[in-house]
Amino acid sequence: MREGFHDDLNHLDELLADMCGSAAVAMRDATQALLTGDLSLAEQVLAADKELDTQRARCEEHAYGLLALQAPVARDLRFVLAAIYCAGKIERMGDLAAHIADTARYAHPDHAVPAELEPVFAALGDVAATMADRVADLIRTTAEGGFAELRHTDETVDALHARVLAVVTSKSWDQGHRPAIALALATRFYERFADQAVSVARRLEFAATGDLPL
Amino acid sequence: MREGFHDDLNHLDELLADMCGSAAVAMRDATQALLTGDLSLAEQVLAADKELDTQRARCEEHAYGLLALQAPVARDLRFVLAAIYCAGKIERMGDLAAHIADTARYAHPDHAVPAELEPVFAALGDVAATMADRVADLIRTTAEGGFAELRHTDETVDALHARVLAVVTSKSWDQGHRPAIALALATRFYERFADQAVSVARRLEFAATGDLPL
Repeated sequence: MREGFHDDLNHLDELLADMCGSAAVAMRDATQALLTGDLSLAEQVLAADKELDTQRARCEEHAYGLLALQAPVARDLRFVLAAIYCAGKIERMGDLAAHIADTARYAHPDHAVPAELEPVFAALGDVAATMADRVADLIRTTAEGGFAELRHTDETVDALHARVLAVVTSKSWDQGHRPAIALALATRFYERFADQAVSVARRLEFAATGDLPL
Repeated sequence: MREGFHDDLNHLDELLADMCGSAAVAMRDATQALLTGDLSLAEQVLAADKELDTQRARCEEHAYGLLALQAPVARDLRFVLAAIYCAGKIERMGDLAAHIADTARYAHPDHAVPAELEPVFAALGDVAATMADRVADLIRTTAEGGFAELRHTDETVDALHARVLAVVTSKSWDQGHRPAIALALATRFYERFADQAVSVARRLEFAATGDLPL
């Protein structure tokens, strides 16, 4: 019975880690679509987001089943509850990637990102997707210290985000208020994506240790 | 024992409903600060947000205690899990109200909202705060049908949000790209606040019925 229970917990981890992998792919594809104006890639990200919603529902059902049938306690209980929490956050990461794809779709056939900001958005996409991959690793290995690491990476995202905002709000911005608004919203989607990854890492650490790190 | 358990569940409901009340106050105060440029009111909202974070932690601890000590099943289990879920969403509502207060603070001593958009933002604040109050009612009375009602109200918020975006992205907008960006972000905070209220109502309905409404 207990062995079956730990198989069930491992299965929950696999579901969650798969969700992170999907969020990372969505983030990379959405950024590519944003930078290249690739409409069909943008639409692919939007379609894939529905799949992530389904993965979340599956993850949550599995966790509910574990709670109802096994009534886990202590560390096991924390892990199951963390999985429900994290599934919600990772689903949100997918939504945010989909919003970025939507920005690309909306700008089409123009490119949403002007040349001077292309490297910044490329970096945002790269760092954010890597954070999602890293969270998948943390789930699979239950390594500690992931929260501090992700929070550190998040500082890079915050700096890139601030740079985009500085450019689009600068007095010398001469590309109109509509592109400025689209870019200010888009950079916020990256920042929020990274925030969700950090809060997943924080919750995983709580599950492992019983202390919610500040 | 079971009677004590139901007292505990009722206490959890009270904690959650109080959180909604705090989110509604934060939304009203933040909107007032945004419309009047009241710096000290904006700072009050930011300070109150920390209290909402504490309320959320208290709510979650209480729910964890219930799960560990009572191992509830079926409807009771759904209620405890819904409470954890909702506490996270309501905390986020507070964060979004705090972002609106921050918009007011950042614009100070100017007003962030131009005269033509004042009635729209006043309506956004009013409808959003009323949604938070309504969620508190739903929690206290465990009434059904709340999700459909809140989703309907959310359409009003979406329409107001679209109106702000239409104004700040219109060709005739002549107040500069910086205020346009601030307003586009601010209106999104209202829209997201309302979304969280809807998802709380949806989760409450799931707890009551066992079916997650679409």
